[in-house]
Amino acid sequence: MVNIYPDEVTDDLQLNGLSIIQKKSGFKFGIDAVLLSDFAKDSPSKATLDLCTGTGIIPLLLSAKTNTSKICGLEIQPQICEMAKRSVVLNNLCDRIEIREGDLKEAVSIYGKASFDKITCNPPYMKCGAGLTNDVNTKVISRHEVCCTLEDVIRVSSLLLEPMGKFFMVHRPSRLSEIFSTMIKYRLEPKIIRFVSPSINKAPNLVLIEGIRDAKSDLKILPELFVYDSNGSYTEEINKIYNRS
Amino acid sequence: MVNIYPDEVTDDLQLNGLSIIQKKSGFKFGIDAVLLSDFAKDSPSKATLDLCTGTGIIPLLLSAKTNTSKICGLEIQPQICEMAKRSVVLNNLCDRIEIREGDLKEAVSIYGKASFDKITCNPPYMKCGAGLTNDVNTKVISRHEVCCTLEDVIRVSSLLLEPMGKFFMVHRPSRLSEIFSTMIKYRLEPKIIRFVSPSINKAPNLVLIEGIRDAKSDLKILPELFVYDSNGSYTEEINKIYNRS
Repeated sequence: MVNIYPDEVTDDLQLNGLSIIQKKSGFKFGIDAVLLSDFAKDSPSKATLDLCTGTGIIPLLLSAKTNTSKICGLEIQPQICEMAKRSVVLNNLCDRIEIREGDLKEAVSIYGKASFDKITCNPPYMKCGAGLTNDVNTKVISRHEVCCTLEDVIRVSSLLLEPMGKFFMVHRPSRLSEIFSTMIKYRLEPKIIRFVSPSINKAPNLVLIEGIRDAKSDLKILPELFVYDSNGSYTEEINKIYNRS
Repeated sequence: MVNIYPDEVTDDLQLNGLSIIQKKSGFKFGIDAVLLSDFAKDSPSKATLDLCTGTGIIPLLLSAKTNTSKICGLEIQPQICEMAKRSVVLNNLCDRIEIREGDLKEAVSIYGKASFDKITCNPPYMKCGAGLTNDVNTKVISRHEVCCTLEDVIRVSSLLLEPMGKFFMVHRPSRLSEIFSTMIKYRLEPKIIRFVSPSINKAPNLVLIEGIRDAKSDLKILPELFVYDSNGSYTEEINKIYNRS
């Protein structure tokens, strides 16, 4: 029996009967989490960790899209983390998904060095501007680097990955040069990227990145992913990712 | 009067009556040089330097596409450099274009620190593999990092640029992470990139990069440039760049 509180909803993920508990008026998962889990799904993994897991959307989606037997999720916000834990129970996935409350910066002491062969992360995209700190709520923490920076995510991921382990992240293209240079600093070599644009002739607003621990330098750019076609409908590929085709 | 030798041709650039001297069977300029000069043309410049200038294609195109009064070109290969000099005479551009023979690694002592507000470079794309050194010819030098590396190009450009000076380069997407990390190392912040793909749904095979000396980190990704449309003809934008529309 799982409690669902009055300010929460249970959203159907339209995938293997999965559903997720979210706040009616809080931060909800977006297309970025869906695209990241799809981007990360094909590389085999025995032990996956999702950093900044929020309500657990990526572990839930990966449980359906892969046969990975151990999927961990780490979330710093107690209230959000507790919702993710209930979603795991709701979907009867306690044998495969383990959600923990904790600070990403402590993740190495929580899990141990080189304990994963795959890490996913849909981190806060925006740098902390001055003045933000007086108005911190869960939405702000999900979107701004209040609790962890890009460098924290990359440094910690590198330590948690075994050699040749894979790192998957979604982020803003505006930060790509910083992302690459930080990944290289921590020996997480960028290997594959894919830009996501609202539609053809629009600039990309998301980028999917795959890095490999200790790999040699050689970057592959996949053809761009377009979300909408010229009629304003989802493209065939997006429908496929959302399991609607 | 300009000498044209029997193993050379004079190619019409279809732009302001310009023409260029090239070897009948040597390295010829490609679409990359044309795209780079177009990508670089809109930022105003009092003094531009083109590194790895080859037969001088980029200075020639920039002379028509901009009103920059001083455009320099540096080329290490004496024979190629001499052809570029003759092309400048052929087009009556000696008052605006100055081609010099010299090693890019010596460029700071040739021109002096911070002497340019714009630098362009279409460098060799490929790393030097072992075994290449026994078979070095002009084509190999134009395509492989025999005489200069990516890091040489970026380090020297950074020194030659004044603060907020602009750096424009075309390269292979496969080296993008290395390019970004090296640019950041030498304080040439990547500001704008544009991928070039043969056609829609194909992965990009070129990337145009604009960096600014000492600028803050914020990368803009322009919509992709497609070379061919679905009928295999040049796209409208490519025709425009080639002055054919």
